[in-house]
Amino acid sequence: MKYGIVGFSGRMGHEIDDLFLEKGHQCVLQIDDKTEKIESAPEVILDFSLPSGLEKTIMQVRKYSCALITGVTGYTAEQMEAIRTLGQEVPVVQSFNFSLGIQLMLKMVNLLKEPLKDWDVEIAETHHRFKKDKPSGTAKMLAAAVGREVPISSFRLGNVPGDHSIAFGSLGEIITISHRTLSRRAFAEGALLSAEFAIRQKSGYFTFTDVLSQK
Amino acid sequence: MKYGIVGFSGRMGHEIDDLFLEKGHQCVLQIDDKTEKIESAPEVILDFSLPSGLEKTIMQVRKYSCALITGVTGYTAEQMEAIRTLGQEVPVVQSFNFSLGIQLMLKMVNLLKEPLKDWDVEIAETHHRFKKDKPSGTAKMLAAAVGREVPISSFRLGNVPGDHSIAFGSLGEIITISHRTLSRRAFAEGALLSAEFAIRQKSGYFTFTDVLSQK
Amino acid sequence: MKYGIVGFSGRMGHEIDDLFLEKGHQCVLQIDDKTEKIESAPEVILDFSLPSGLEKTIMQVRKYSCALITGVTGYTAEQMEAIRTLGQEVPVVQSFNFSLGIQLMLKMVNLLKEPLKDWDVEIAETHHRFKKDKPSGTAKMLAAAVGREVPISSFRLGNVPGDHSIAFGSLGEIITISHRTLSRRAFAEGALLSAEFAIRQKSGYFTFTDVLSQK
Amino acid sequence: MKYGIVGFSGRMGHEIDDLFLEKGHQCVLQIDDKTEKIESAPEVILDFSLPSGLEKTIMQVRKYSCALITGVTGYTAEQMEAIRTLGQEVPVVQSFNFSLGIQLMLKMVNLLKEPLKDWDVEIAETHHRFKKDKPSGTAKMLAAAVGREVPISSFRLGNVPGDHSIAFGSLGEIITISHRTLSRRAFAEGALLSAEFAIRQKSGYFTFTDVLSQK
Repeated sequence: MKYGIVGFSGRMGHEIDDLFLEKGHQCVLQIDDKTEKIESAPEVILDFSLPSGLEKTIMQVRKYSCALITGVTGYTAEQMEAIRTLGQEVPVVQSFNFSLGIQLMLKMVNLLKEPLKDWDVEIAETHHRFKKDKPSGTAKMLAAAVGREVPISSFRLGNVPGDHSIAFGSLGEIITISHRTLSRRAFAEGALLSAEFAIRQKSGYFTFTDVLSQK
Repeated sequence: MKYGIVGFSGRMGHEIDDLFLEKGHQCVLQIDDKTEKIESAPEVILDFSLPSGLEKTIMQVRKYSCALITGVTGYTAEQMEAIRTLGQEVPVVQSFNFSLGIQLMLKMVNLLKEPLKDWDVEIAETHHRFKKDKPSGTAKMLAAAVGREVPISSFRLGNVPGDHSIAFGSLGEIITISHRTLSRRAFAEGALLSAEFAIRQKSGYFTFTDVLSQK
Repeated sequence: MKYGIVGFSGRMGHEIDDLFLEKGHQCVLQIDDKTEKIESAPEVILDFSLPSGLEKTIMQVRKYSCALITGVTGYTAEQMEAIRTLGQEVPVVQSFNFSLGIQLMLKMVNLLKEPLKDWDVEIAETHHRFKKDKPSGTAKMLAAAVGREVPISSFRLGNVPGDHSIAFGSLGEIITISHRTLSRRAFAEGALLSAEFAIRQKSGYFTFTDVLSQK
Repeated sequence: MKYGIVGFSGRMGHEIDDLFLEKGHQCVLQIDDKTEKIESAPEVILDFSLPSGLEKTIMQVRKYSCALITGVTGYTAEQMEAIRTLGQEVPVVQSFNFSLGIQLMLKMVNLLKEPLKDWDVEIAETHHRFKKDKPSGTAKMLAAAVGREVPISSFRLGNVPGDHSIAFGSLGEIITISHRTLSRRAFAEGALLSAEFAIRQKSGYFTFTDVLSQK
């Protein structure tokens, strides 16, 4: 497919570009803060940059009437609304976490929460020392999936890209589901799945959970 | 409920008796190699002893027309057949592993095997130094659930009651499901779930997987 | 050796008795709240009961002029002083944790703290749901051994006997030391090492750390 | 310090250059297969390239009479001899593993091997699916440090940079030391420590273990 990247020279931009090229796709649009390089019309634009660029991104998506995959975090409520509205014209996939593993982890928690409703639950997350917020958004998503109050412990350690675990315990046994991000590659793979999904849709607003369930 | 235990003075017999009493049930039949103590008719008999006692167990089940929960390992094909036949008269639950956690682990593997069919898979199990067989039967069950060839690594370490884990890995992320047996209590809890299930049935041959899915 | 146990019918009393018998030693004194059974003079008395029995224990130790191993927690300052004073007459080993593994963990932390003084450190402990205090005393000992402020995360999960871990992280790597108690057997083994050490001394007040370093 | 890198455009070359620049050092020599860029005389040359370039590297080291840090693997016995001989003229640090964490892990194993000589030991290592050899050289080093036969289990999973663990188990407890490489940064940090050490020496052949013990 022909794709474009907003935030091309950022770390996530590079990661997406590397994976898409490796899979034989063609980069035809590269947008950064001050530079723009457009070769031909993209079928999908991927935006993993900052909320401030949303207006410009939407303009480009409309110009080429192409799909949009956005993994930007920190949108305002108005911006979220603008993205949903855009979904009436073109296919849009929006998510805060494009890792397949985390999505499957949520599914597994869903499977366990009823049979283990009397067990203790504990969530832990470990991230690099530069991460300011505690607990991580993903840990909060896991807690929400359990559907009852769950303690979350946060570790800040070296340069760990992101570990999450959820443990269920009874008097006789412990079940633990753990997820470890090895690199941003995990998110690039989720973006690829989303792009492959999006270019087959006419229009619509989708989350990454939708992408995986309709695959 | 009124219950009976075959192999009452064995380690698993004690564990079951402790849990059932704690839950307010009443032990009315205790059978060991050479001793028998019967107070009144049981609604369910639990047998976690040895294959050699099967004939006697079946006799008792028929006498009281009660349910049977059997966690005995090492039955011959003929004995397995006799148990299935018994299921035409009374409710019978038979399994080699009454741990709820392992059953849920199998369900989770089932959920992951299709979306992660291109990921690497590795299984590990750790047991006490006295365990002779490698790999454990449960590890083999997990491998079978994946539905393709999976390497299994076995650790023999101190007095570990039983740890099992299965890890799925891609270039970007790792998902691991781990199970740790804390004590035989885990199996007693599975026996209790099975007994509660069985006394609500007219008759039938069931596995522990059936118990959990029909709960 | 000939040994006596104060708190013989408690869980820790049983664990010690099982191990000592297994090693060929001979139980000659059994003391409980209201019962006393004395066959002959012990070489060492082990007390893992409650602080309230200390006076009686000291009386017995003096009577037989034997060694004392005490793992009782919750002594008052006066009681601690009485124990130290007793060390002027007979060999006394006193500790809050008789696990060899935890002692070695402290040694390893000691070895790491200088070369890893710029790394992040995180401590975690997991115990059964019945444990009221957070964090565990052992976790606090580990933090103290690091010699700088270390965050401690506590998990309360099922019936876990006691897990402790300490992780050191830089931008390039993570080192973790983990300890898992499988059963009270770990503490019984520490009591045995202490008893073997104590009966070779004339007198003196020792900790379990002394026992291991002088072995 | 002024440093030079042989294999400058390789992945390890980049990692070293990034770290050294970050610490305020100055790159004055860059050598690759076919290119050479020399600004001024280096105090130390770092070589993490291939065995085939050794002769050229030694020539440069002699020319500037500077220190050499080499992390090249696969040298012949003759090449190893040539490196040791070079140590008579200038300071040379040679190692197959420049990770501080692995060196400390070896020290910890050294500390445990005597007191835990009766415990079971198990080693595990996990690496990316592209690693052909099993078990890893580092796992073999760990086993050798224990000083008795130790089983090693190898996992090949996704893109894991390198995990190693060694577990000691008795009937009562388990101690595990784990090491996780987050990135080549770990090795770059070891190269930096070695360079800082080497430029303070007159001459001599050293391993990374020497660097850490004499620091």
